[in-house]
Amino acid sequence: MSLDLRTWPRPDRGALFVVSGASGTGKTTLVQEALRRMPNLTFSVSATTRPPRAGESDGIDYLFVSPEAFEQLRQTNELLEWAEVYGNRYGTPKGPVLAAIARGDSILLDIDVKGARQVRRALPEAVTIFLLPPDMATIETRLRARSTDSEAVIERRMAEAREQLEGAAEADYIVVNDALESAHDQLQAILVAELCRRHRHPTLVERFGA
Amino acid sequence: MSLDLRTWPRPDRGALFVVSGASGTGKTTLVQEALRRMPNLTFSVSATTRPPRAGESDGIDYLFVSPEAFEQLRQTNELLEWAEVYGNRYGTPKGPVLAAIARGDSILLDIDVKGARQVRRALPEAVTIFLLPPDMATIETRLRARSTDSEAVIERRMAEAREQLEGAAEADYIVVNDALESAHDQLQAILVAELCRRHRHPTLVERFGA
Repeated sequence: MSLDLRTWPRPDRGALFVVSGASGTGKTTLVQEALRRMPNLTFSVSATTRPPRAGESDGIDYLFVSPEAFEQLRQTNELLEWAEVYGNRYGTPKGPVLAAIARGDSILLDIDVKGARQVRRALPEAVTIFLLPPDMATIETRLRARSTDSEAVIERRMAEAREQLEGAAEADYIVVNDALESAHDQLQAILVAELCRRHRHPTLVERFGA
Repeated sequence: MSLDLRTWPRPDRGALFVVSGASGTGKTTLVQEALRRMPNLTFSVSATTRPPRAGESDGIDYLFVSPEAFEQLRQTNELLEWAEVYGNRYGTPKGPVLAAIARGDSILLDIDVKGARQVRRALPEAVTIFLLPPDMATIETRLRARSTDSEAVIERRMAEAREQLEGAAEADYIVVNDALESAHDQLQAILVAELCRRHRHPTLVERFGA
């Protein structure tokens, strides 16, 4: 797809896109390509209590915060969603997202089903997109292909994937990652179409009305 | 844009797309390109009381009906919308549209703002798309460029265009025909994205749920 980004009607109010999907649905690849194709989309930077790794920059890869600062963000309702993974906490600060939307910019969030549910509760206008594999067998093949893990670990990942897939029933849009190029196109089409929604363009509509 | 149509998730229930816009917004060009890019979309065939012209086939260009038959369709609520233009009546038969949607096929309707309003009332699930020019001056330039009409006729067309443009406030989506290639892409993105909506895929969602 080759969309001419310069000529898009910039919305008065941007969109928050939330992409989720089980492991093995190709989520990371799809999200990276979506950001590459649409340079006017911003990827949200998460806050985390995990210490920085070599090469990671504060404010770019993550906002690195103390457990106390994280807890304060959480308690003052400053996070759109948060989760604990292997003892570290990760969360999406609400302020920068709301500021971007109000400016007319759009944000892409790549999170799991539980996170998507939290975001939808905190910001019902969020646009949720769920990536599906063609079938469960494909998920298993993909998990086995990329992992050197034990059978037990793969089984656990399959169980997690099954649980995640129930998130499909809650999403606004579904993309089946059957053929990769087609999935890329469908994801981009959703982002573009949402930015063409009339309710995001009150100024434009007013200009021609009456 | 090059979407691989074969891999789309075919929806359980198709969509009725209604494209409208004022004269001079490039509607005909945009609609023809949308149908070319998306061969799985069907263009709705209108019923008309106008006699066939040379080369027109019944059931392909129009359904040619008598004034009495048209009146019967209208009175039995068998038309999604209808209008009288220069003494001839034109309308969209409801049956074939509903049958196509129920099969999972999608239909594209190219009608004016009043027609779009009638369709929305008859079938609230219709997806309405409104084409806008970059500004009123562009409409005037386009109307003058293509017409050998008198000043009075052009003035009347401009007045009609202004009236039509108020339809923008009612549409689900807006496409600004500023750069033609970009407008083609935006229109196609809307069609593709709508077919990715989760509510059109209950069977797919069920397959992965629980």
